[in-house]
Amino acid sequence: MSDMPKSIAIKEEGPREGFQIESADIPTAQKVALIDALSETGVKQIQIVSFVNPKKVPGMADADEVVRRFNKKPGVEYSALFFNTQGFERALSFADRLTVKASLPLCASETFLKRNQNRTMKENIEALHKQVEIYKARGVPVNRGSVMAAFGCNFEGEVPPQRVVDLIGQIFEIAAAHALGINEIALADTMGWATPLSVKRLVGAVRERLPAPRINLHLHDTRGMGIANVYAGLEMGVDSFDSSVAGLGGCPFARHRGAAGNVCTEDLVFLCEEMGIETGIDLERMIEAATLAQTVVGHPLLGHVMQGGSLSALRAKARSAA
Amino acid sequence: MSDMPKSIAIKEEGPREGFQIESADIPTAQKVALIDALSETGVKQIQIVSFVNPKKVPGMADADEVVRRFNKKPGVEYSALFFNTQGFERALSFADRLTVKASLPLCASETFLKRNQNRTMKENIEALHKQVEIYKARGVPVNRGSVMAAFGCNFEGEVPPQRVVDLIGQIFEIAAAHALGINEIALADTMGWATPLSVKRLVGAVRERLPAPRINLHLHDTRGMGIANVYAGLEMGVDSFDSSVAGLGGCPFARHRGAAGNVCTEDLVFLCEEMGIETGIDLERMIEAATLAQTVVGHPLLGHVMQGGSLSALRAKARSAA
Repeated sequence: MSDMPKSIAIKEEGPREGFQIESADIPTAQKVALIDALSETGVKQIQIVSFVNPKKVPGMADADEVVRRFNKKPGVEYSALFFNTQGFERALSFADRLTVKASLPLCASETFLKRNQNRTMKENIEALHKQVEIYKARGVPVNRGSVMAAFGCNFEGEVPPQRVVDLIGQIFEIAAAHALGINEIALADTMGWATPLSVKRLVGAVRERLPAPRINLHLHDTRGMGIANVYAGLEMGVDSFDSSVAGLGGCPFARHRGAAGNVCTEDLVFLCEEMGIETGIDLERMIEAATLAQTVVGHPLLGHVMQGGSLSALRAKARSAA
Repeated sequence: MSDMPKSIAIKEEGPREGFQIESADIPTAQKVALIDALSETGVKQIQIVSFVNPKKVPGMADADEVVRRFNKKPGVEYSALFFNTQGFERALSFADRLTVKASLPLCASETFLKRNQNRTMKENIEALHKQVEIYKARGVPVNRGSVMAAFGCNFEGEVPPQRVVDLIGQIFEIAAAHALGINEIALADTMGWATPLSVKRLVGAVRERLPAPRINLHLHDTRGMGIANVYAGLEMGVDSFDSSVAGLGGCPFARHRGAAGNVCTEDLVFLCEEMGIETGIDLERMIEAATLAQTVVGHPLLGHVMQGGSLSALRAKARSAA
């Protein structure tokens, strides 16, 4: 347990993960209310929308409007997800409201990449080279790489850690070709294949080859391993995680039964804070945001701590009874 | 990870945990159907009912009938939970159908004990001495001790590991006074206070004092830490776990919001089998039993793998596509 970090960074992705998969009928004002509630929790990074084709993702049809209307809190970084130049330009047009950073995403499964972005591996790398030039020309920082489907793929099965290490090598090659420095590598369990053991193996393999960049874990909770996988990451010293309030979301392209979203933010905060790892997040406020998220989407969500409650009120009551 | 066991024993408690908290209107035939489905999964121990006052636990009013009607499969051990002499006698009357073993349960929180069983610590120990004599007179083996609320209590707060170690000492004293040998100690996170860190600390503290007896973990998933806590237990070499199919159940006496049941059996099986730890359970059949459990109770349950699916079909498809 000596490798456990003292504090971690959490990127809240609930609004983006959630509204891309939920009904398109959710009023913009309610989306904005959730983002505003999240701004008050202490979380420092919130991904609020994705700039994608509204025909493919109807829940993002009002993305511009959401970005215009949320209440921007100083000290919080708001971002948008984009996959192509069009999305990038939309993000840039909100440079006063959004922090626009770019990343170099590769995918460990060509079949998934083909279904998700309609590109081969080779086409994806070529496209990235071109896109990096556009990012640079527009003065947008590119210091992050990511590997999707890093643990396994519903269409291709197991992903060997060596393949991921090789892909990260390719990310560094692309970066080097454009004189960029990569300081964070995100490993995404896009389809919920990871276990604590495979998290330890992959993080270990990546660390072995590339000791320097920070590792981020983006863990979907499809098979209920999310929090255990986070814990395995913490034991390996990982200190950067993506998560979704109330467990909102899921990937509309993965097409597997019960596509669960990211690991749940308030459960992740509970795990860390109870173990003495600082998150900078007020758990009670995050539980309130989770409860609001449930109201906004109009159906029960999968978070546990929002149902079971935190322990602080129980501790206070126990102290006053003693 | 060197301490991880090669195989684990799982005690399925879904029927008992579930039907004691669910609506009393579930037909006996459906309860029996779930037990019969569980018998076909490969699980070797199933706790099927509790012999308690039906006025307090209406869902157990048909416990005798359930025991009479389930299809007893050779090689599977069926058991009932009981707290007093009356319950014990009911269990004994089914000695042809049930495996009757007794245990020595203590509780780390006197307030919870008082609410749950209406006894002080002292009264509980006195009662256990008397009860052990009854067990012995009836030829019932007593080789297990357990500590309820071993990680924390909603009414008393944190439970220090030393208190649990002391309680286990008392269990051994009671056993010694009656010339009994204890070979398993169950640590129950009755109200969902455990984290992976506190699991490691408590298991470590118990092991330090008592290297010999097997440790069993009974982990409620109230705050979503269940699978992570199991993983922490595995890392400490624990190889005996209680669980509930589909996450059925919860404790009707704990009276906390969203009282979640035991850690979910099929999620636990997935965790272990994916990491190469044998459970003896056929995951696909356990998923079928979980789906049946959901039908029987008539509302969604909390298991993840039953929604997300196992990986074996996806692996087979990926292999045939390659």
